[in-house]
Amino acid sequence: MNIYDDEHFFRSYIELRSSANYNDILETPAILSLIGDVKGKRILDIGCGFGKTDAALSDAGASFILGIDISEKMIGKAREENSRGNIEYRVLSAEDISSLDGSFDVVMSSLCFHYIKDLNRLLSSVHSLLSDHGILVFSTEHPLTTASYDGHYTEDGNGWSGYCFSDYGREGKRESLWFERPVTTYHRMFSTVVNSLLDNGFTIKGIVEPLPDDEALGKIRRMVREYHKPSFIIIKAERI
Amino acid sequence: MNIYDDEHFFRSYIELRSSANYNDILETPAILSLIGDVKGKRILDIGCGFGKTDAALSDAGASFILGIDISEKMIGKAREENSRGNIEYRVLSAEDISSLDGSFDVVMSSLCFHYIKDLNRLLSSVHSLLSDHGILVFSTEHPLTTASYDGHYTEDGNGWSGYCFSDYGREGKRESLWFERPVTTYHRMFSTVVNSLLDNGFTIKGIVEPLPDDEALGKIRRMVREYHKPSFIIIKAERI
Repeated sequence: MNIYDDEHFFRSYIELRSSANYNDILETPAILSLIGDVKGKRILDIGCGFGKTDAALSDAGASFILGIDISEKMIGKAREENSRGNIEYRVLSAEDISSLDGSFDVVMSSLCFHYIKDLNRLLSSVHSLLSDHGILVFSTEHPLTTASYDGHYTEDGNGWSGYCFSDYGREGKRESLWFERPVTTYHRMFSTVVNSLLDNGFTIKGIVEPLPDDEALGKIRRMVREYHKPSFIIIKAERI
Repeated sequence: MNIYDDEHFFRSYIELRSSANYNDILETPAILSLIGDVKGKRILDIGCGFGKTDAALSDAGASFILGIDISEKMIGKAREENSRGNIEYRVLSAEDISSLDGSFDVVMSSLCFHYIKDLNRLLSSVHSLLSDHGILVFSTEHPLTTASYDGHYTEDGNGWSGYCFSDYGREGKRESLWFERPVTTYHRMFSTVVNSLLDNGFTIKGIVEPLPDDEALGKIRRMVREYHKPSFIIIKAERI
């Protein structure tokens, strides 16, 4: 069973997302700005969660959106709360998208790819699902986050002073706890993520490491730590 | 005066490069592998130093090499020790390359771009000096290095345990000391370097964050720290 279907994890995650949070303030805006105009576009959302972004893309004029997620609870909540006539939600793992047919103008994925062991296989499947010059926009935990989950921000008399981490150059599986539940992610260096895109027929169109502005810091003061070590990286690539 | 013409700094730097060093083991091999076959190619080397790489590129079959460096001492040593019939060495700052004419198949630069304040201006000049589909291969100090020069590796009972740094998200000027001499560099996030290349008419072809193999660790044991935080990043881009 995936952790998102664990009752305690699911409730804790939904609670996290229901108040001011890093996703809504830093990560989702960066994804939407890199995707750009979606009018008339067919979109696949890999790891759509409870569908908040899919509803926004539908309201922004996308012609069709397929939202897939490994979690039945998430897809259930998406259907309840973020249904639209042109959105289809389906329980499907990112690792099984090769079973999909049809082609998409945009493939997006929010904070899902760091759960995937074989990034090359995933990117190859995404490539085959994209139309010519279709774009992939995805966010992952920042490589400085995935390097070591015992990484930590430091403090001195003046506040947050820096960040300490380890093993950035040692890629592969990482085990950690989130809401007291074990989570497995896979660490990859910047260069590995970019080279995997190039190796699988993509060209890089833009990269964002989002930082908080004053309005964001007014909502979540500790976000100032992002200026030492960002939480996310968002990449836009085009199928060539 | 640039620091490389400071007598003490110059002697210290030459001594550093004369024994087993990070450049020869990690950085230069990555640059040469990203450049690939140079037979018949016209090459511009920005910040050529004492010309060791230029001599290697000449011996590998390049048709012509222009090596420029801001330091008269470096150019003097290059002419003494690494002359070839098809290499021209010239005292010129990377910030003045717009004064050059002619076109090149390859522009390379080893550990120079982090001294440059206006990266966009430099990349625009490089673009205009490259032939169609010409390539740029450059190394810089890793963004995790340039973020904060008081960054440091940590130790525990088992050896090197990690790396602590700050201000990765705060770009701009950094002042530090090297061989007791003040050095000014400019920190840019990974995303800023990539986006600057895209904004100036380049497409990304490959990125390397070099790590030491067993042979390298046999020569310089402390290089194992690179597995926590690499020292260099090397990027290959193509003029489009």
